[in-house]
Amino acid sequence: VLQAEVLYDFTAEPGNNELSVRRGETVTTVGGGWIEAQNSSGQTGLVPEGYLQFSVEVLLRYHYDVDFGVVFQVGRGVGGGGGGDSCVGGGAHVSDPTEGWNSQGYTHTAGNTFYLVFITAVFSGYQWISRSWQITVGLYVLRFPFSKGPSPEVFLLAKPPANSRDRLPVYVGPVWLYPLAPLDCVIADPKKESKLYGLKSFIEYQITPNTTNRPVNHRYKHFDWLYERLLEKFGSALPIPSLPDKQVTGRFEEDFIRMRMEQLQAWMTRMCRHPVVSQSEVFQLFLTYRDEKDWKAGKRKAEKDETVGPMIFSLLEPEAAELDTAEVEQKCEHYSRFTKSMDDGVRELLNVGNTHWKRCTGPLPKEYERIGRAFRNLSTVFISSRYPGEETLTDALTAAGQTYEEIAEIVAQQPQKDLHFLLETNNEYKGLLGCFPEIMAVHKAAVDKVKEADRLVSAGKITNNDRKLMNQRVSCMSYSLQAEMNHFHSNRIYDYNRVMQLYLQQQVTFYEQIADKLRGALSRFATL
Amino acid sequence: VLQAEVLYDFTAEPGNNELSVRRGETVTTVGGGWIEAQNSSGQTGLVPEGYLQFSVEVLLRYHYDVDFGVVFQVGRGVGGGGGGDSCVGGGAHVSDPTEGWNSQGYTHTAGNTFYLVFITAVFSGYQWISRSWQITVGLYVLRFPFSKGPSPEVFLLAKPPANSRDRLPVYVGPVWLYPLAPLDCVIADPKKESKLYGLKSFIEYQITPNTTNRPVNHRYKHFDWLYERLLEKFGSALPIPSLPDKQVTGRFEEDFIRMRMEQLQAWMTRMCRHPVVSQSEVFQLFLTYRDEKDWKAGKRKAEKDETVGPMIFSLLEPEAAELDTAEVEQKCEHYSRFTKSMDDGVRELLNVGNTHWKRCTGPLPKEYERIGRAFRNLSTVFISSRYPGEETLTDALTAAGQTYEEIAEIVAQQPQKDLHFLLETNNEYKGLLGCFPEIMAVHKAAVDKVKEADRLVSAGKITNNDRKLMNQRVSCMSYSLQAEMNHFHSNRIYDYNRVMQLYLQQQVTFYEQIADKLRGALSRFATL
Repeated sequence: VLQAEVLYDFTAEPGNNELSVRRGETVTTVGGGWIEAQNSSGQTGLVPEGYLQFSVEVLLRYHYDVDFGVVFQVGRGVGGGGGGDSCVGGGAHVSDPTEGWNSQGYTHTAGNTFYLVFITAVFSGYQWISRSWQITVGLYVLRFPFSKGPSPEVFLLAKPPANSRDRLPVYVGPVWLYPLAPLDCVIADPKKESKLYGLKSFIEYQITPNTTNRPVNHRYKHFDWLYERLLEKFGSALPIPSLPDKQVTGRFEEDFIRMRMEQLQAWMTRMCRHPVVSQSEVFQLFLTYRDEKDWKAGKRKAEKDETVGPMIFSLLEPEAAELDTAEVEQKCEHYSRFTKSMDDGVRELLNVGNTHWKRCTGPLPKEYERIGRAFRNLSTVFISSRYPGEETLTDALTAAGQTYEEIAEIVAQQPQKDLHFLLETNNEYKGLLGCFPEIMAVHKAAVDKVKEADRLVSAGKITNNDRKLMNQRVSCMSYSLQAEMNHFHSNRIYDYNRVMQLYLQQQVTFYEQIADKLRGALSRFATL
Repeated sequence: VLQAEVLYDFTAEPGNNELSVRRGETVTTVGGGWIEAQNSSGQTGLVPEGYLQFSVEVLLRYHYDVDFGVVFQVGRGVGGGGGGDSCVGGGAHVSDPTEGWNSQGYTHTAGNTFYLVFITAVFSGYQWISRSWQITVGLYVLRFPFSKGPSPEVFLLAKPPANSRDRLPVYVGPVWLYPLAPLDCVIADPKKESKLYGLKSFIEYQITPNTTNRPVNHRYKHFDWLYERLLEKFGSALPIPSLPDKQVTGRFEEDFIRMRMEQLQAWMTRMCRHPVVSQSEVFQLFLTYRDEKDWKAGKRKAEKDETVGPMIFSLLEPEAAELDTAEVEQKCEHYSRFTKSMDDGVRELLNVGNTHWKRCTGPLPKEYERIGRAFRNLSTVFISSRYPGEETLTDALTAAGQTYEEIAEIVAQQPQKDLHFLLETNNEYKGLLGCFPEIMAVHKAAVDKVKEADRLVSAGKITNNDRKLMNQRVSCMSYSLQAEMNHFHSNRIYDYNRVMQLYLQQQVTFYEQIADKLRGALSRFATL
């Protein structure tokens, strides 16, 4: 039983055994995801987890059996020792987002500023790299727990991996091995289902892969499970973008279901397009499980998978020469700079795109409507003059007014037809690019370790063979990174080429449509 | 010598004998227009009149020899007696602009609210109808003096007019007699001139009428003199729109001179188009004077003209049956309603037009520029990836960015090409429509007097013949009003037909141009 503070007002949907709670209220909780809680009036029921704030201590104790007094390094590289100068203890401490390689600031779409902070916890002689904490400034909501990936040091000197179906074949280029027939799937037919005798309701989607053409059913929770597995397994090597946000209120409304399905489709399409992810056992399980038993067994197996985090690189055996550490470092830096710049560029475009969206759906159509109404009103006044022979003018003026009112409608609808896809694509890329800092951090940590190797050999801490092995392993990691960057670039070129053409085509049609309408309005006036 | 308070900071232009004064300062003045004044430091020089505030008392004494204690009716009809309930004395009293037929509120383009207030002053047994006072709310600046038009009662029982070249021929319809060759003039070639040995500088314009094809020179001050004469002479019967505002600072700048010339041209064109105004002696004098002597003599004559104000109706002899007073009243009311509604309509259009102008020249192009820059920046980032074979994409993306930057420029320039003329035309109509309340007031006052006639005959105050004469005269006034309304309507139809076509044509071109540009940008992307 945990105590938590309620962050937002939540109104229970009737018939779902939910519990209404008020912001600021302290509740007693049981369970996860939807948490069964008791509010201050003594009522019990379900409350969405995201609405509750646990203290950092509570969470660390609950999820990770972390004892108090543990030192966390914030905003620092992955290094040994416990000499961090910033501590996370009673309250989360957020490092300066501009400080160091492993922290990064960005603006959340909803307007709040989030900081993505990498935290290294050293305890019991074992090192953890946090995946990321998303900490709402001002609220300090701990949203994501730590991921369980071991440090790259574990891999650098690790034994050859246990037998695994998953492989990361890298070909000369270096490029991933792409399957002959690209995987794809269609998400459709969202249905409201319930379980626990109606206690919990949810939406189930039908997912049909092109390989089997046999639909499987999954709810959002399952997508989230898949995301967690993919992140845990591939997160050190490949960008695994987040799923669309969990949402609580209005989640059974048609518009929301359609939008979420569109976003899940985009996410799945991107995962299907990735040769490593799409061929992985856990992803195949998600798309092709035979029955509930098959699914449950697969889930258990996936959750026990030990080739996760940096150990993923052990699945990779490049058919190419071992690389020089300096060369690896240089490539890392180049990719880091590129992904950072592209992240800036994408954010800039999203920023102006969102502003433009607001203008195009708000003040601009209102103004066209007002222009249209002003023309129509003037026409009405002219008619009231009873002056003979001005029907051509008044008819034309009324038509011009209606035209501008129609243009208002066209303007307001347009962003949905063009800006929408431009923004969605850039949002996807923002998600992908947001994964690179951690990927780069893993590489940098490995490179730093290898650079220490000479000293470690001298000090007799590792053998010369160990050093050779470390060089080979860093080389592996670099080939993986290069293959991934090449995958990223070719997808980027395809995606931006496609979305820009779509955008411009729709924009041309938009302006042509308005010109046509105005030409029609013009033709109704008497020729001078 | 008058005391005045300085309303705005004024910085003297060097070499023009001007005087710098500061807001709030009290100065001692001599002269008009540009007033020679002494500031608190004892310096003397010229200050623009509009920058000085005189108390209402000072102005009334100075311009009109009005004694104090005089009763002004504010916001009331033209009626006899001194029983006004609102007084203008120590401070100007502004009546509720929505109260009564003879007051009207409007918003000044500069953003300040002005009220146009008609004030009737009754003293020495003689009645004056004020032309209008423009009183700045908050500042209470008395900007216009009274006009000297006698009340319609003077005309209703007046003797036949003295011999005058001017005539107001009304034909069946009723319509004014239009000249066979329409008068027109071209204003061009503004030149900076000076007089008083360089003491005063001004701009002189060359005006060439199509009748003589011989240019005459006039400065703004002369246009203003002409305006005052036309207003005094025709203001009770015809709308005489105001000249473009007097301006003091920057009046020798090229942009200002061009804009003022354009506005003076529009004003002169409208006056030339009016059959009564254009044929009047004073207007012809302005356009065709032979030499300085001719001009001076004509000026003196025009200033002594006694057929002004309501007496103008004495120049009109309709070749049609005498009208019934009830019919006249009905027509007046219909025209009043129409001009009021059109005034509302025009203001609404000006309002939204000005808002739209600001958006089209401000935030909208800035946004297109930002979109363009975001595309170009993304292209630069893509180039930095060094990934081979993406030149087509990066070239196209750069071009798309440049296209949106060009569109920004097109958007920002567009209002000057279309909205400008739509707003100028509506501004002209706002000016014309602003004249009708007084024209209607004169008619209503006459109708009210005639309706009293029976009582006056019974009381032995007027004879039966007087009553007949009054009926004839009201009938004359109504024919004049009808001819003027017909003139107004036919001009209105012409002007709005023309300006709407111009506007829509330019709008079509605008949207086509953007569509073309975007089509060009689209064509640079690789076909999918």
